[in-house]
Amino acid sequence: MGAPGSAELREAVWRANQAIVRAGLVTLSFGNASGVDRDGGFLLIKPSGMPYEELRPEHLVAVSLADGTVLGSDLRPSSDTPTHLVLYRRFADIGGVVHTHSTAATGWAQAGRSIPAFGTTHADHFHGPVPVTRPMSAAEVAGEYEAETGRVVVETPEAAGLAAAEMPAVLVASHGPFPWGADAGAAANNAIALEAVAAMARMTVELDPSTQPIPDFLAERHYRRKHGPDAYYGQQRR
Amino acid sequence: MGAPGSAELREAVWRANQAIVRAGLVTLSFGNASGVDRDGGFLLIKPSGMPYEELRPEHLVAVSLADGTVLGSDLRPSSDTPTHLVLYRRFADIGGVVHTHSTAATGWAQAGRSIPAFGTTHADHFHGPVPVTRPMSAAEVAGEYEAETGRVVVETPEAAGLAAAEMPAVLVASHGPFPWGADAGAAANNAIALEAVAAMARMTVELDPSTQPIPDFLAERHYRRKHGPDAYYGQQRR
Amino acid sequence: MGAPGSAELREAVWRANQAIVRAGLVTLSFGNASGVDRDGGFLLIKPSGMPYEELRPEHLVAVSLADGTVLGSDLRPSSDTPTHLVLYRRFADIGGVVHTHSTAATGWAQAGRSIPAFGTTHADHFHGPVPVTRPMSAAEVAGEYEAETGRVVVETPEAAGLAAAEMPAVLVASHGPFPWGADAGAAANNAIALEAVAAMARMTVELDPSTQPIPDFLAERHYRRKHGPDAYYGQQRR
Amino acid sequence: MGAPGSAELREAVWRANQAIVRAGLVTLSFGNASGVDRDGGFLLIKPSGMPYEELRPEHLVAVSLADGTVLGSDLRPSSDTPTHLVLYRRFADIGGVVHTHSTAATGWAQAGRSIPAFGTTHADHFHGPVPVTRPMSAAEVAGEYEAETGRVVVETPEAAGLAAAEMPAVLVASHGPFPWGADAGAAANNAIALEAVAAMARMTVELDPSTQPIPDFLAERHYRRKHGPDAYYGQQRR
Repeated sequence: MGAPGSAELREAVWRANQAIVRAGLVTLSFGNASGVDRDGGFLLIKPSGMPYEELRPEHLVAVSLADGTVLGSDLRPSSDTPTHLVLYRRFADIGGVVHTHSTAATGWAQAGRSIPAFGTTHADHFHGPVPVTRPMSAAEVAGEYEAETGRVVVETPEAAGLAAAEMPAVLVASHGPFPWGADAGAAANNAIALEAVAAMARMTVELDPSTQPIPDFLAERHYRRKHGPDAYYGQQRR
Repeated sequence: MGAPGSAELREAVWRANQAIVRAGLVTLSFGNASGVDRDGGFLLIKPSGMPYEELRPEHLVAVSLADGTVLGSDLRPSSDTPTHLVLYRRFADIGGVVHTHSTAATGWAQAGRSIPAFGTTHADHFHGPVPVTRPMSAAEVAGEYEAETGRVVVETPEAAGLAAAEMPAVLVASHGPFPWGADAGAAANNAIALEAVAAMARMTVELDPSTQPIPDFLAERHYRRKHGPDAYYGQQRR
Repeated sequence: MGAPGSAELREAVWRANQAIVRAGLVTLSFGNASGVDRDGGFLLIKPSGMPYEELRPEHLVAVSLADGTVLGSDLRPSSDTPTHLVLYRRFADIGGVVHTHSTAATGWAQAGRSIPAFGTTHADHFHGPVPVTRPMSAAEVAGEYEAETGRVVVETPEAAGLAAAEMPAVLVASHGPFPWGADAGAAANNAIALEAVAAMARMTVELDPSTQPIPDFLAERHYRRKHGPDAYYGQQRR
Repeated sequence: MGAPGSAELREAVWRANQAIVRAGLVTLSFGNASGVDRDGGFLLIKPSGMPYEELRPEHLVAVSLADGTVLGSDLRPSSDTPTHLVLYRRFADIGGVVHTHSTAATGWAQAGRSIPAFGTTHADHFHGPVPVTRPMSAAEVAGEYEAETGRVVVETPEAAGLAAAEMPAVLVASHGPFPWGADAGAAANNAIALEAVAAMARMTVELDPSTQPIPDFLAERHYRRKHGPDAYYGQQRR
């Protein structure tokens, strides 16, 4: 019996891993993208520490959603796998998760600041400020650190009353961004958009530290152009 | 009957779309370039949400200048098409329009600041500060949002008494740059110059927040080197 | 009779033009590199406004050092040619000149600030702060503008008692850098080093605005490692 | 008798030199990577001033650890070779040394500031703040300058009670970074990580100058994920 994961899913998750590299979000081997097979009950994720230029779809490691065991592979999954598992378990409607240490988003995470919605690029992807988590406690870090990281990620939009699809990214304080999406490709796109938004927001506060977030009516309009029943962006059926 | 648009125009508009990508102005599929056929009464524009690497000249969507209907294509035009239409209708002498969310220009737009003319790079392309629009009202955003965006774009240089050819770009507040030009290629060049100018101006205010714009005699000299009857830049007839 | 300029010189000047593009110093067609044939009494320079990707060695335009006339070409030389001519005439020991609008160096030029010698990268190439010119007067700008630009360039190191070889670059206020060197390749290297030095110096003043220039004993040591009779950098004879 | 250095070591050191170029850490020919053969008693290092695009594994120069003489080569070794020698002699457990003038790390070095541990990217590679050396004295600079540079490098982690493996990089004040590692590839990875960490830390202090370093329990956890007997990152045996 071979490793689980259809050729299509393996290809899609592999493409998402390549997309974050091509977009310049990855230094060395920091960062990973995963995708989920809900019916099969497993995720596919990048092996730990493997150089991106060597990565092939067949290297992706399948890990059980139920108990976190590796399925049909001799490779270790990313050390961040327990974080991904927590996200897939709590957010039933997501299909992909990404983690990077991209420079601008990590700059905000290290400063412990949420990224305000300063413009329409932000509003096209994120419904409100991209939140930063609270600092993790010594007990959380000493315990199941990666799973606890997942727990502070999921609690953060929930504390703000936001569904996973509305706010598809969280900045882990002192660490970096965890974006997600409907599938691995959408999660990679959100990672790329987040880095662009973080770089623009940095420049905005440099140019005018008193800049206010955009009004709700503008944020809402942009968000609805791309999301939900009235979306009119892209090549949906005309 | 095929889709309208000569092979030359399709090639030129396609090249302008590729130029803004190669220059690093485009994240994901944000951004678009269009060109106009005044005699034919239509513009050609990028399809909505189509990845740039898949874009071919034949994908460009023709849209009627008169009534905004799609001509001979099953693809949706860019969701920003109504903005482009307003610009082509009001500015009779322009032949190309570009929109991007390029980082530095968008940083200024999000801070709600016009870009001062701090140097000759600026003066070579823009006749005075590149203006930022007023914020759009709730009614404008709730209504024909993209067409209203075009209206605040065109009112901005007009309020300053500037012709479209003198100030070939406006920053839409909280959104990003809309440059234009005599054709799609010129509009793309103005988009590229604007991003360079925005990045340099950011650095200039960082190094000395009290920097004053260059004097009119210098701005005028540079602008006239490249524009108008006394231009002596490039390979015009000697 | 063909155009003047040996194949070797044409190749060297062409390479210098390509080097400043590859190093990211050039936006659109801003920027140019020239080289001189002192015995032949002419310089070779990039044609005005020609895209770098089309440029071939045979396109370089020969211009007489004596009277500035174009020799054996139907192409217009760069509009900055009169500036290059002034530099070659005044600085008898230089063989190449470059001009760019590279972002960081232009940021300093626009802020009207000399670049302090904050580190050894600087000292390896420039003997003291890279000076910014005084602002040009209305009369200078209205007159032979490009030749007057050359005059403020040459007066700037001279006012500081520096030989051309000691300070191979000047920032023209509100404009951008003019580096030079023993030949076109050396001028391009100084342009590249200057942009790196400008970017690092910007960061240094951001991190600590009170940073002082390095002491003379360190600057001198580094400068002498690469220049003069006691140089011991590179593959000179051992 | 040929030049010393196994094909494997030459290839590894050559790859490390290429890696720092590909990662954007190198301007012109600034920067070099070396690797050591402890049994053979020599290091292999880049020739002085040789362009990276011409560099081949056979060009690497072998230099005796005992007395610094060149072994079996007509090329001059990097002018920084005496610095590398001091590091290999003092730090018995390192196998590779890198030196660059990468922009962000050099910005911190020029400002004379250590890089605080603001996040987990930092903690994954460096055990505490990356220290900056004291300024070198006039006597040190006038004497065996490159060897003295090595001496201030090695005294810096030692003064803080840190082993070479815990803090595999030092910023030389007014100069730039010297990272090292278990072999040339590890040293190059530390150089790349250091530049990323320096850029993120710059952004963090811009966004909030009062940001505090991460707590020890978090730094320790991340450092131990990748280093020492309990490491669980990468493809070690499962």
